[in-house]
Amino acid sequence: MRHPTILWRGDQSGHCELIDQTLLPGELRYLELHDQEAMWDAIKRLAVRGAPAIGVAAAFGVLLGMKGQAEVDGPGFGARLEQVCAYLASSRPTAVNLFWALERMKARDRREADRPVAERHRALFDEAQAILREDKETCDQLGRHGAELVRDGDVLLTHCNAGALATAGSGTALSVMFAAKERGLRFEVFVDETRPLLQGARLTAWELMQAEIPATLICDNMAPWAMKQRGISRIFVGADRIAANGDAANKIGTYGVAVAAKAHDVPFYVVAPSSTFDLSLATGAEIPIEEREPEEVTEGFGRRTAPAGCAVWSPAFDVTPAELITGIVTEKGLIQPVGQAQVARILGS
Amino acid sequence: MRHPTILWRGDQSGHCELIDQTLLPGELRYLELHDQEAMWDAIKRLAVRGAPAIGVAAAFGVLLGMKGQAEVDGPGFGARLEQVCAYLASSRPTAVNLFWALERMKARDRREADRPVAERHRALFDEAQAILREDKETCDQLGRHGAELVRDGDVLLTHCNAGALATAGSGTALSVMFAAKERGLRFEVFVDETRPLLQGARLTAWELMQAEIPATLICDNMAPWAMKQRGISRIFVGADRIAANGDAANKIGTYGVAVAAKAHDVPFYVVAPSSTFDLSLATGAEIPIEEREPEEVTEGFGRRTAPAGCAVWSPAFDVTPAELITGIVTEKGLIQPVGQAQVARILGS
Repeated sequence: MRHPTILWRGDQSGHCELIDQTLLPGELRYLELHDQEAMWDAIKRLAVRGAPAIGVAAAFGVLLGMKGQAEVDGPGFGARLEQVCAYLASSRPTAVNLFWALERMKARDRREADRPVAERHRALFDEAQAILREDKETCDQLGRHGAELVRDGDVLLTHCNAGALATAGSGTALSVMFAAKERGLRFEVFVDETRPLLQGARLTAWELMQAEIPATLICDNMAPWAMKQRGISRIFVGADRIAANGDAANKIGTYGVAVAAKAHDVPFYVVAPSSTFDLSLATGAEIPIEEREPEEVTEGFGRRTAPAGCAVWSPAFDVTPAELITGIVTEKGLIQPVGQAQVARILGS
Repeated sequence: MRHPTILWRGDQSGHCELIDQTLLPGELRYLELHDQEAMWDAIKRLAVRGAPAIGVAAAFGVLLGMKGQAEVDGPGFGARLEQVCAYLASSRPTAVNLFWALERMKARDRREADRPVAERHRALFDEAQAILREDKETCDQLGRHGAELVRDGDVLLTHCNAGALATAGSGTALSVMFAAKERGLRFEVFVDETRPLLQGARLTAWELMQAEIPATLICDNMAPWAMKQRGISRIFVGADRIAANGDAANKIGTYGVAVAAKAHDVPFYVVAPSSTFDLSLATGAEIPIEEREPEEVTEGFGRRTAPAGCAVWSPAFDVTPAELITGIVTEKGLIQPVGQAQVARILGS
């Protein structure tokens, strides 16, 4: 990637740098984070976002919080680690990957508990680097598997941002496009702007332009007409949570894209790492759907665009049922057809 | 209507008042127009919009342009009328109702050409009032016919603004809701915000709130999820042009709503006066689709929300095929099923 979303400079006493996504697409600026407070703030205000990227940010936040602990004793080191993790966990209390990464850092330290403090510090550094490396590898695997599905001349469509900016690597749905481009395939991409927060317009269009992939921005309500008039041949989107039967929660609007795709016989693929699956949920009906504040709809562009007092319904996600999904690309392979048995078979492999 | 979209004060030497729709929903302000230049400007900058409303505005513009012509002779009166009409026609060269109204004013004057100038002036006033009155009557008829389709407890959905603000009367699709409310039916309405220009958020939500009809604003991409999760039971939209077979062009996004409605078995109705039909077109494939400027998508509300240089595709309309339309409500009755034979039968009646 030309512009890594998040990276670490130096050894365990170094610092983190990440793209401030709140400034995109107007400005590409890296934040330098030297303490845990700066990382907490970056996660809180969405300077870094996207489930995999938040996991890596949390691991780096732990390293920042543990700097300068060389003189403490063993129990002091462990106590400090608990404090740092509890603090970072409070930045975005609903982000599952945040807790997953913090738990993984603590588990590593428990395995190293008998060693000198300096070595435990080094082990935490290794673990954070492993989380980063594995996320990158997973993205590359998603890209490799997904690119098999792209054909020369394709007209693709995507919704929201499932790109490098949501991960520490090359993204999920967009990783497929980057990999297809590397293979020399020619294709273009229609990008849903993705109201209310416009992640498609702000982030996905920017990533594709950076990668020199021809991208055309549309309003969300133009996607079905693009399928009819502009020959959309394949659709790739990400996912936030996938149930055991393959029902997939993703950014609001994904369901409508899938419904229109079915009506136009356009293959509709979800691209997501296996960690996105929540096998404790039998179907998507069990996935809780967050509702967002009305102001994101009524004043999303900087000034009020709806009457004062107007009621708003703003679900953050919707659930696309398995029967509308042609296939789910995971780092372990393609789940197709999408259903409970095939999900279990691929994830268990 | 509590707030008429456009009205005339006094006799043929009076003036026009109309709501400045560019200020809604933030401010309800009437413009007072005393000369043809002021009307030309109001049409040009969309202070008045919507096909039927523009027709009435054009007729009133003619009256404004003919003020102070009492002393001219007969040929001078006719020449001035031609000048005024040519001038007003240049305000929005693609608005069909503009030309229709101007042509109707000139035809009336041709019928009165042998009478004294003062009487010809009075006849133009009568004609403009007739255009206004007929538009109001048509809206009321659309409301009456459409309200027959609404059931107590309905959850309706609409797209864009097919309201009083688009006409001189109570609107087209929204006239159905106003009439249903007057009949004592209880129902609520989901309102698509309608990107890129947000006529749903700015105008439709405002009109429904004024009428005390429960309205909930959603982003366009939430409409299919609302059909699945919020029990949308019926959909009413307007139309800009309808072909002889019933294919209907309307604001971009209407097609996607119709596709999703079909998938969810939700009845989908178009509400439009018979003047919206263009029987010279066999199917909707012949309807030309205007493409809009990229800036409406990338900087619609005062600040840029997409990368500089990003390609944009922004069709202003899409065409919903007849087979996705449950029925078309006209002032002459309901066209159902929708097809060439039934269109001819109802419009010919």
